[in-house]
Amino acid sequence: MPSPRALRRTNPITIALAALLTVGFLFFIFSSASDPAPPPPPTTKERLGSKDAASNPLSPPSLPFRKTSVLKQDGTQAPPPVVHYQMTNLTASADPVGNRETVLILTPMTRFYQGYWDNLLKLSYPHELISLGFITPKTREGNAATAALQEQINKVQSGSKGKRFASVTILRQDTEIPLQSQDEAERHKMENQKMRRAAMSKARNSLLFTTLGPTTSWVLWLDADIVETPASLIQDLAAHDKPVIVPNCFQRYYNDEKKAMDVRPYDFNSWIDSQTAQILAAKMDNDDILLEGYRELPTYRTLMAYMADSNQDLHAEVQLDGVGGTALLVKADVHRDGAMFPPFSFYHLIETEGFAKMASRLGWKSWGLPNYFVYHFNE
Amino acid sequence: MPSPRALRRTNPITIALAALLTVGFLFFIFSSASDPAPPPPPTTKERLGSKDAASNPLSPPSLPFRKTSVLKQDGTQAPPPVVHYQMTNLTASADPVGNRETVLILTPMTRFYQGYWDNLLKLSYPHELISLGFITPKTREGNAATAALQEQINKVQSGSKGKRFASVTILRQDTEIPLQSQDEAERHKMENQKMRRAAMSKARNSLLFTTLGPTTSWVLWLDADIVETPASLIQDLAAHDKPVIVPNCFQRYYNDEKKAMDVRPYDFNSWIDSQTAQILAAKMDNDDILLEGYRELPTYRTLMAYMADSNQDLHAEVQLDGVGGTALLVKADVHRDGAMFPPFSFYHLIETEGFAKMASRLGWKSWGLPNYFVYHFNE
Repeated sequence: MPSPRALRRTNPITIALAALLTVGFLFFIFSSASDPAPPPPPTTKERLGSKDAASNPLSPPSLPFRKTSVLKQDGTQAPPPVVHYQMTNLTASADPVGNRETVLILTPMTRFYQGYWDNLLKLSYPHELISLGFITPKTREGNAATAALQEQINKVQSGSKGKRFASVTILRQDTEIPLQSQDEAERHKMENQKMRRAAMSKARNSLLFTTLGPTTSWVLWLDADIVETPASLIQDLAAHDKPVIVPNCFQRYYNDEKKAMDVRPYDFNSWIDSQTAQILAAKMDNDDILLEGYRELPTYRTLMAYMADSNQDLHAEVQLDGVGGTALLVKADVHRDGAMFPPFSFYHLIETEGFAKMASRLGWKSWGLPNYFVYHFNE
Repeated sequence: MPSPRALRRTNPITIALAALLTVGFLFFIFSSASDPAPPPPPTTKERLGSKDAASNPLSPPSLPFRKTSVLKQDGTQAPPPVVHYQMTNLTASADPVGNRETVLILTPMTRFYQGYWDNLLKLSYPHELISLGFITPKTREGNAATAALQEQINKVQSGSKGKRFASVTILRQDTEIPLQSQDEAERHKMENQKMRRAAMSKARNSLLFTTLGPTTSWVLWLDADIVETPASLIQDLAAHDKPVIVPNCFQRYYNDEKKAMDVRPYDFNSWIDSQTAQILAAKMDNDDILLEGYRELPTYRTLMAYMADSNQDLHAEVQLDGVGGTALLVKADVHRDGAMFPPFSFYHLIETEGFAKMASRLGWKSWGLPNYFVYHFNE
């Protein structure tokens, strides 16, 4: 246990991190009553046949609200009715489009990448079933990312109806530790990793706890520097019907030897545990974490990054003990049970790898698709 | 790590628990535009002076919504605008009423106690700043509790404006393990405690993850069988400005010896750790938990229950290592950082005691008020 003094040292930073949480909410409407567009497809609650399901939007339960009114057929206002959302059969199934399941895409963002945004827009999952959530740091870099993001959001949400998302939330976290320093070499230094990943964990948790709602079926974690995925990413991953599933994150680069573009593994956080790693962990102090992908501390874990074989089945599955978060599809119920991203050493694991361990402690297994690729930005 | 077979055994139950999650939403309006009532006090976002803060209520970000319209001054409809909620200065302070901070009261409920409800209504914290969240099991007992609850909600939300709550959410969890068997002796049997408290943890987590929103400053956990608290409970606890704070939970009973009503300690989950407990825990298997208040396993922890002295300062504080959840005030940022109720052994602790440990791992300390009482129903 940390001493009281250590805690007193910790508190101001944590308090600053948390108390200065800034939330920017952007709400956009998929369709409006004054619009002569064809009626949108039925929502989950309508599909479930609840007779008294109302379609007027209301605040999240934790938002105090008032001055609301409902426009009656004759044009006059009536006080809003009691609204019941019956969601008995909220599913997270292998056929999410058929079952009209809502997906919440969550992205911690320090820098705005046009490639990320363009790829996001190309996702073929019905956009009206997608809600977006972002968290950006309250730094100069974060301000720039937020501004760029808002501009793009304005564009898509006022554009073609089929492209609009159900809603967009931007959370602004005031923090002295940026989510990610953008210098890659600096970012990957082992001694910086623990602090960096603890900060990233808290950002992910804030985003998750604040945006997860009662109708969310799936959460897709998608990092801001993922610039290329299949358009059918969500459908493809969901088709496996796994509680937690992760594709293989690679990177395109120019191979000088081959004089051609090539690909190489990027994310080493998806792995199957090894006895060596277990023994290393057993010798560690409670607060120490065992990181992956560092030559100075070989774990001999089986890394999904090296299991890729593009000649093999695209949908081959492997069960994993650690997962990366660059792209990661999670059934919302896994989070609802309590699975979050530990910002502290959890079985000597942190962030997304700690998340997989926590999900496992809750009885939910993680899976990977070694031959199904998403691509990371190349700096 | 559990064997794959053990996990296969666990999964169906967990999936049943989670997939059959039922959400019932009840939204009530504090004030309506057609109502000639005086304007309500400013909301947090207005107080913060954000110029473009809009007051029309919208769905939670994860709810797909549509057909929304805004009533213009001239009575016609316009498509809803982009709504920005600027919440830079969301606080959780010692003066929550003065700062108009939103409190989310969360209650897992198996049985409806009129005493709980009457006490809730008497809370002097401005009701328009309070959102309520309940989770009830999908059992016959849970159905009855839900029905009784809805009836009371209908009454208060259609009654006097000053008494209405900002919003009410009921989550219905389909589960074969009831949140609480109501036979007290059975409930407290040590061998039943781990399973019971794991189920309770998942219920608390579902409720928390689903209802916590961007404007929530505080979360008050209040058990359904707490039938008496000071009316100023929220203000009194918040005044201490602690990340996590718990009053002393007692019970009124008829003392046969004294021939008079008397009080006795009820909740033994608020404690300061002991070396004995640490040594006991160190000898345990990873999955074992160390419970409090059982004669067969003395921990020699310092229990807040026995520190009570009603002649001493009402607001005396003690720092705690474990907390009970019968009444528990938590700054929302503690949860946002990731603190939840572990349904598994976390440092050999579970549920609310595990929560205190997790909060501590995140740098947030827990405090207790030994001389400040709330009272548990006497069965």
